[in-house]
Amino acid sequence: MSSAKSTHIVDINLTPVAFADPPLLNAVGVHEPFAIRTIIEVVTDSGAYGLGETYGDEAHQNRLTLAADALIGTDIFDINRAREAVEAALAADATAGGHGMSGMITDSSTLDRVFSPFEVALLDLQGKILGVPVADLLGGRVRDRVDFSGYLFYKWAGHPGFPDDEWGEALDPEGIVRQAEKMIDEYGFTALKLKGGVFPPDEEAAAIEALAARFPDVPLRIDPNAAWTVETSIRVAERLDSTLEYLEDPTPGIEGMAEVRAAANMPLATNMCVVAFAQLPDAVAAGSIDVILSDHHFWGGLRRSTTLAGIAETFGMSLSMHSNSHLGISLAAMLHLAGATKNIDYACDTHWPWKNPEDDVVVGDPFSFVGGALEVPTRPGLGVELDRERLARLHQQYIDCGIRNRDDTGYMQKFDPEYRAVAPRW
Amino acid sequence: MSSAKSTHIVDINLTPVAFADPPLLNAVGVHEPFAIRTIIEVVTDSGAYGLGETYGDEAHQNRLTLAADALIGTDIFDINRAREAVEAALAADATAGGHGMSGMITDSSTLDRVFSPFEVALLDLQGKILGVPVADLLGGRVRDRVDFSGYLFYKWAGHPGFPDDEWGEALDPEGIVRQAEKMIDEYGFTALKLKGGVFPPDEEAAAIEALAARFPDVPLRIDPNAAWTVETSIRVAERLDSTLEYLEDPTPGIEGMAEVRAAANMPLATNMCVVAFAQLPDAVAAGSIDVILSDHHFWGGLRRSTTLAGIAETFGMSLSMHSNSHLGISLAAMLHLAGATKNIDYACDTHWPWKNPEDDVVVGDPFSFVGGALEVPTRPGLGVELDRERLARLHQQYIDCGIRNRDDTGYMQKFDPEYRAVAPRW
Ligand SMILES: [Mg+2]
Ligand SMILES: [Mg+2]
Repeated sequence: MSSAKSTHIVDINLTPVAFADPPLLNAVGVHEPFAIRTIIEVVTDSGAYGLGETYGDEAHQNRLTLAADALIGTDIFDINRAREAVEAALAADATAGGHGMSGMITDSSTLDRVFSPFEVALLDLQGKILGVPVADLLGGRVRDRVDFSGYLFYKWAGHPGFPDDEWGEALDPEGIVRQAEKMIDEYGFTALKLKGGVFPPDEEAAAIEALAARFPDVPLRIDPNAAWTVETSIRVAERLDSTLEYLEDPTPGIEGMAEVRAAANMPLATNMCVVAFAQLPDAVAAGSIDVILSDHHFWGGLRRSTTLAGIAETFGMSLSMHSNSHLGISLAAMLHLAGATKNIDYACDTHWPWKNPEDDVVVGDPFSFVGGALEVPTRPGLGVELDRERLARLHQQYIDCGIRNRDDTGYMQKFDPEYRAVAPRW
Repeated sequence: MSSAKSTHIVDINLTPVAFADPPLLNAVGVHEPFAIRTIIEVVTDSGAYGLGETYGDEAHQNRLTLAADALIGTDIFDINRAREAVEAALAADATAGGHGMSGMITDSSTLDRVFSPFEVALLDLQGKILGVPVADLLGGRVRDRVDFSGYLFYKWAGHPGFPDDEWGEALDPEGIVRQAEKMIDEYGFTALKLKGGVFPPDEEAAAIEALAARFPDVPLRIDPNAAWTVETSIRVAERLDSTLEYLEDPTPGIEGMAEVRAAANMPLATNMCVVAFAQLPDAVAAGSIDVILSDHHFWGGLRRSTTLAGIAETFGMSLSMHSNSHLGISLAAMLHLAGATKNIDYACDTHWPWKNPEDDVVVGDPFSFVGGALEVPTRPGLGVELDRERLARLHQQYIDCGIRNRDDTGYMQKFDPEYRAVAPRW
């Protein structure tokens, strides 16, 4: 209602979807056979639509519904007021859970997490209606291509009871190096990240050392998802002193991270102890981190993520980018954000190689990696369109798979009833 | 060049202007008969133009010229790259001065100060070309009207050698109350700020007490521009304990402000000890301030000012808005910024009442105060157009007046050769 160019929301469709996911191991268990997401389609009175993508957990879906109801009638240029409307709608919500991270991160802001996909959809709409890419609405591109890291996981050969997947088993340094070779061969990544916290720290350090021997010029990272004590973290940091580009979330909490940071020589990164604006003052005061892995899905959307970038720059921190299992809408949003953010200083994470190419909701195959990088889309809005047949198929997959909340720990316990998610484990 | 909607800068006009200014007293002297500004007009290959306004000091003008040369050919949607181009252009500049604040503030970022008016002009162009108000490009309005404070000054009846102006003399509490009555009568302000640092602190405290007696429901502030020691500041803060909405820059520096803040009961505000992103970490660590008076002229433009707002929100500080003597382009920019910034928690400053209505460069009279507030413009871009006849007249005034650098101290010394600008003075 404030705009010369006035365009209002008349409908919002929330569609839960599921797509096949390999048995990737992490500090709290193993990925289930399907990853779940929610696809958001915001429709205006002008007949245009904007897209967003977020977690699929049930409690989160319920909050998305509350938010969507509150946004009907909103002008698509009123992002600030839309956020206030969602805040008001969530005020009465007293449900728990739905953080979308299988218990690994629970401290993100509920408002930022719920509002994020709607904000992305509003920016997609603005860009489409105005004829400019979303990156231009974020201040314009500072890079034309975004570098990604090859995201390595310990994994089983296949889901128990199902055939092996194309990646096969990776349970030791040799398996990780083999996986890295395949991933670099297919995508050209120039940085590698190992998801750790699965095996005793020295076994994982040995995997990093094997990667360093095989790829001496490739920057390496390890992310044990807070599976280590402060003492263990410092010991592993010493062992990998000359090998790591950064050490990601070795230990839980702002205080623990600060202790490790004081002792370790490499930069310390996090997407666990600082996942919300409310955590930044304590983290800055404690000197906990060098690198924040930003993630628009929990930092309140793309505009709030550029604010995070400004905070990082102001307080002397660097930025990288976090990833969950995601589809093409989230990838497009990540590209526009990274394209318009000067101080994304490291190759971004993505789970993209772990997804079947045909499992998506966007039209065609708009992303092709060259040298581990993707072009920032230059088409209006996010630059992706909704493929309604694919959406219907992935929604049917959601219905059929029966997974309603991400539960890496519960899935692991099916095969190892004694398994417990504890942090730190070592 | 990155945009689907590609529009490039083909010309930039920088026009120094001067407009009549009354003899307003402050901690470093007295306003000269003319205030000087630079008007920036950015012209695109599509024939559109965008407007910016900034300081008029010579060293600043020279840097603006360097910046303008570097921006020719830039896409108007490439704000991030435009900033990089200006940064590169300024790298070779080794000149001093040109802070635009008569020596009161010299720590603002040269890049942010120089880039700001160009960023405003690019947003004006984007808005005009896209058909949306600048506020929408900042996330959309959170308020339709922006409250301003009545900005009271000790002043002489007129410039020496010239007739008295319409405001007359204000050199004591009675004069200040009379000035406030006239200003509230004409503009309807619901908050008042007294520019202090002119007379001994107890005389100024008495003026605040006189205002409180006359306007018991109006929030009051005093800003002595760091003219007081920490000890004096704490003493005055005690005297005005129940009277002040906030105490603005009583004493110099981040450490001194922190000492006063620890002892004073009212919020402490600044537009002097924190005027650049680089100063925020120390100010946050020292706990120096409650309220930042933002000012897009030295915080790098409107988008960087919304980042400042995010930092303030994150680190538990409030926002108000600072003003220098300015024309309609700056006022429009201030309105869009304040309109789109949720945590502008206080009525903003403006020097607007001290300017002759006919002294401006914008078409018509687009601003009319009601109840001390102005509407956020809803026309595309900033919502103001350039009046080229007025621009020519104010440029001629610049040529004729001979003022090339703001120098409140030097002007005071014409009448009081012993006068020295010292801080703190009391
Ligand atoms: Mg991580
Ligand atoms: Mg001030």
